[in-house]
Amino acid sequence: MRLQTDTRRAQLLELGMDLFAGRSYDDIAIDDLAAAAGISKGLLYHYFRGKREFYVESIRASSLRLRRLSEPDPKLPPVARLRAAIDAHLNYVQEHGPAYAAIYRSGIAVAPEVNDILEEHRAVIARYFLRNLGVARPRPVLRAALRAWIAMVEGASLDWIAHPSLPRDQLRELMIAGYVAMLAKALELDPKALPQSLLKAAAAAS
Amino acid sequence: MRLQTDTRRAQLLELGMDLFAGRSYDDIAIDDLAAAAGISKGLLYHYFRGKREFYVESIRASSLRLRRLSEPDPKLPPVARLRAAIDAHLNYVQEHGPAYAAIYRSGIAVAPEVNDILEEHRAVIARYFLRNLGVARPRPVLRAALRAWIAMVEGASLDWIAHPSLPRDQLRELMIAGYVAMLAKALELDPKALPQSLLKAAAAAS
Repeated sequence: MRLQTDTRRAQLLELGMDLFAGRSYDDIAIDDLAAAAGISKGLLYHYFRGKREFYVESIRASSLRLRRLSEPDPKLPPVARLRAAIDAHLNYVQEHGPAYAAIYRSGIAVAPEVNDILEEHRAVIARYFLRNLGVARPRPVLRAALRAWIAMVEGASLDWIAHPSLPRDQLRELMIAGYVAMLAKALELDPKALPQSLLKAAAAAS
Repeated sequence: MRLQTDTRRAQLLELGMDLFAGRSYDDIAIDDLAAAAGISKGLLYHYFRGKREFYVESIRASSLRLRRLSEPDPKLPPVARLRAAIDAHLNYVQEHGPAYAAIYRSGIAVAPEVNDILEEHRAVIARYFLRNLGVARPRPVLRAALRAWIAMVEGASLDWIAHPSLPRDQLRELMIAGYVAMLAKALELDPKALPQSLLKAAAAAS
């Protein structure tokens, strides 16, 4: 029974973001949401206290899904790993463009706690890449370089949704070039920013 | 009389952003704003229809000020021009950190029209750099490269406000490296993205 409830809730959350992305938040009535989900309004209230909670939890679920998808796969070699993580991110953006744009552009306007979800999302992505680099506690310049790059990925994704004429591979290559440039500059500015073992491995591979 | 009114309004707007940045929007009463500005509540209402209009117009004025400050100076050579524009941006961020953070992190939550102000701001900054590059209508990859870089500058600035331990010069060098990497990759992906004259000048200078 508990499992069923959780499954149904997860299904509603998956549907939720696409419902909210389609129209402005204020224009959607809780009845519309229930109808689109094929359940009664009463049952929807069983899962969420109201439209706002359904909205915020849909965004949280989207963030968790995107994190899982874009977690670098340690089984891949470093460059392929970065490319695969960015590809997974761009797949998500391509499939859920209006939802992604709605979260980043108007989510905070609907509910300020969306800001916390986005900040946590950025922190998790930064941790993925730090773990990948073998860094437990980043020095300031490495932290800044990663945060700058994450902001670049968000901004470039949002711009791509609005202007999809750019071929997807070109966007990916821009993002990879940004990552490489940020890490290279961080290392130049602070030679202790990356572990020696990583640099030796990179030198040996090249 | 008209001039006086405009001057007073401009002074209020300059003050406004710092007032709003200091506390959460909801916690500030119109009386507090009038008292901080040293004018009567009635006079404040003469300039703005209410707290919300004062807030939105303060953000618009901040955006205009920052645009003026960070417009590249055509009298400088290209690299110095980029460095000076980023320095001007970082000066502003350093002096008005809480205001900058408030605009980008919670402005939209207070008033959705803040999103339009931010989008216009990005478009103006992109036009500055396109003019600088001698490009009237950017090809998709150049547009994306510039937008990605602008998002990087915003994100890195916000992160710097929250984590100011990074030396300012290092942040500037990260931003310059990002700009150079984005343009170089855009050119590699689409050799027509930048005008031949610019490339010849760069080759001659190096």
